Amino acid sequence: MTLDEAIAAQKPLVQSLLDGVAAIGADPPGITRDAYGRGENEAHDLIRKAGVALGMQASIDAGANLTLRWVAEKPEAPPIIIGSHLDSIVQGGNFDGAAGVIAGIGAVAALRAAGITPRRDIEVLALRCEEAVWFGLGLIGSRCLLARLPPGALELRHARTGKTLAESIAAAGGDPAQLRHGKHLREPATIGAYLEVHIEQAPQLVEAGRPIAICLANPGNLRHPFIRIKGEDAHTGLPHRFRRDAALAGADLSLCLEQLWLAEEAAGRPMAVTIGRFHTPADRHSLTAVSGDFELSLDLRAYDAEHLVTLEGKLHEIVADVAARRRVTITLGERSSAAPGLMDPALMASFANAAAACGLPAVRLHSPGTHDANNFAAAGVKTGMLLVRNQNGSHNPHEAMETGDLMAAIAVLAQLIAEARC
Amino acid sequence: MTLDEAIAAQKPLVQSLLDGVAAIGADPPGITRDAYGRGENEAHDLIRKAGVALGMQASIDAGANLTLRWVAEKPEAPPIIIGSHLDSIVQGGNFDGAAGVIAGIGAVAALRAAGITPRRDIEVLALRCEEAVWFGLGLIGSRCLLARLPPGALELRHARTGKTLAESIAAAGGDPAQLRHGKHLREPATIGAYLEVHIEQAPQLVEAGRPIAICLANPGNLRHPFIRIKGEDAHTGLPHRFRRDAALAGADLSLCLEQLWLAEEAAGRPMAVTIGRFHTPADRHSLTAVSGDFELSLDLRAYDAEHLVTLEGKLHEIVADVAARRRVTITLGERSSAAPGLMDPALMASFANAAAACGLPAVRLHSPGTHDANNFAAAGVKTGMLLVRNQNGSHNPHEAMETGDLMAAIAVLAQLIAEARC
Repeated sequence: MTLDEAIAAQKPLVQSLLDGVAAIGADPPGITRDAYGRGENEAHDLIRKAGVALGMQASIDAGANLTLRWVAEKPEAPPIIIGSHLDSIVQGGNFDGAAGVIAGIGAVAALRAAGITPRRDIEVLALRCEEAVWFGLGLIGSRCLLARLPPGALELRHARTGKTLAESIAAAGGDPAQLRHGKHLREPATIGAYLEVHIEQAPQLVEAGRPIAICLANPGNLRHPFIRIKGEDAHTGLPHRFRRDAALAGADLSLCLEQLWLAEEAAGRPMAVTIGRFHTPADRHSLTAVSGDFELSLDLRAYDAEHLVTLEGKLHEIVADVAARRRVTITLGERSSAAPGLMDPALMASFANAAAACGLPAVRLHSPGTHDANNFAAAGVKTGMLLVRNQNGSHNPHEAMETGDLMAAIAVLAQLIAEARC
Repeated sequence: MTLDEAIAAQKPLVQSLLDGVAAIGADPPGITRDAYGRGENEAHDLIRKAGVALGMQASIDAGANLTLRWVAEKPEAPPIIIGSHLDSIVQGGNFDGAAGVIAGIGAVAALRAAGITPRRDIEVLALRCEEAVWFGLGLIGSRCLLARLPPGALELRHARTGKTLAESIAAAGGDPAQLRHGKHLREPATIGAYLEVHIEQAPQLVEAGRPIAICLANPGNLRHPFIRIKGEDAHTGLPHRFRRDAALAGADLSLCLEQLWLAEEAAGRPMAVTIGRFHTPADRHSLTAVSGDFELSLDLRAYDAEHLVTLEGKLHEIVADVAARRRVTITLGERSSAAPGLMDPALMASFANAAAACGLPAVRLHSPGTHDANNFAAAGVKTGMLLVRNQNGSHNPHEAMETGDLMAAIAVLAQLIAEARC
């Protein structure tokens, strides 16, 4: 069987795995695979069984990540890792994360079916808890692997179970004690390359009419998951001059940040601002009270580390201005950040060659999203990503990736490995 | 005992009733007396016992309102009602509503202690569920009494118990079947006057350094308790041009309404806008998702019926503009309204004379809040209100009325009744 035929033959396997993780996460109208909970755990089980059925060796690391290893007879170089995650947000879509892990399984299955023996170990890695919704901190599996957990992270509490991250990792088969020493679970120098396939989280490939893109860079981010605004509760009849309305201060802050975004984009500096959680306190909602409390989350992203530093300064200026004008206190609270993830130029070239060999055009795009790949790139691992066309964005129930487009990404991965171009 | 002495002698009774309803509603840091629930019911019991101890006759009407009647031997005119409410918002203050009912008890106690026999029946009325927080509709007790329930009101559901209003009224001893016929429980023509004492819900009397004010008018309102904005859920990485962010549309709408308010005030047309509930859906909060859903409540108030009509037109223009600019759908949903409550000029003059007799200066103020008095005024009953100085506004745990200021209002009520000036 030629490699092309072998790749095409994996479509039923790939489809069954996509359907399998969808069934596990079914939470109409969307998909919920809760990190360290039933959803993520059962998806890990499904992928582990699929890898073992292909003759791969399964292991769990101290961060409860799943590694499936296809062992080379005589390894000539450090292993190639194909990774992504299996958790989702609450009522998100099926493909954000899972498609990348399944692409790794599909590529290995194709190479084996074509009778190709790898020149180095090939690992498929299912990383834990990539989504920030569970702990207010994302990319946790790759942070564990590469000693990038921020101080106090193991004491953060799961939004659904209330368990600490340490307890959650232990319950999923990891060993949080090993994570407290700040050591890498895998030395970056021992990783030949990290490859990740991920759906595009914007409709740019749909607009362009192309199935896949080679990623140029992932944005870094600055996050404040729990911003609090404190004004003063008051009655509906209070004249404007006396009010210290926390909700209107939140509205004001959000629109100032949107103005910053539009001005930066207009000046040619790509970025994004997202305020996902934005609310008066649910336990004290009243039609007839001015709210003295308001909460919001902020995710601010950009592709350049210096730009992020500048933006953080502007954020602080805006916060001070809104607080003064509205006579409220704004507490930014917990802060986390991720460095922008620059893709390896040699890997980008190898992806382009492999894509050409598969007859696929090689579009290049900035990734809209931050991914586990950021942590590998930041640790100095040669990192490359493929983005897959996806209708309707991501982090919503209407993600729509065609399995055929994922097969295009699998073809490029398999071709790359077959030619040992990394 | 002179009337002055008799009034002063009621301060311990008044204080004990204020303390009693505070203990019933204790919900640190505030006070919660849930309508038709334990809080309101126990407060009704306490007031009923206090009235009965003064020789008043207790009865419950079909709306579950409590009437305490001091029966005149030979009534020369229709009864005077002194009314207010005993429910509160969630974690509000102790005085909004309760102070007015207790003022009625205090005035009756003072008149009896002074040996004054009333020339007409004097009733103290504890109206149910004045606060809109429980059903998204306020002034329910007086609406029941005066056939002013809007269509469908009896099927609204209690925010805490989920019971319908009809079920809630029945459980509190009322008879919702009588409310379905749209008839008055009390004919307006049979009510001599409706008097209400209420804390001021703004610090204007604190600024002015006066204990009480004679109310000129209560604002009418237009309310949309459940406005929904529908955009599209999306990933943090989605470029701005693709976004349909419901939360930012909510922010935009709220600031446009604030601009309308400031422009109207600047043009000499007093009004207020309150957006008390303002939130992304709590069950789908994510740091890393653009929210496709947003909800808010709107209370818009003004002192003139024509002004309210104009403002409603402007609201619809603003909503259409924001929806178009933000590519979202905005559904205003349920609508309720209350007519502005104009106080009776003859009663205002009687209050002024009674205040002068008590040595109290007669400031006149527009009320910041809407009250049950609005329904009596709208039904054609001669209506008068006294506002009591109150620090820190209302609908928050920090309401701070001095009992001495409430005694000033009680003195004016008692003087008015003693001189039969209404």
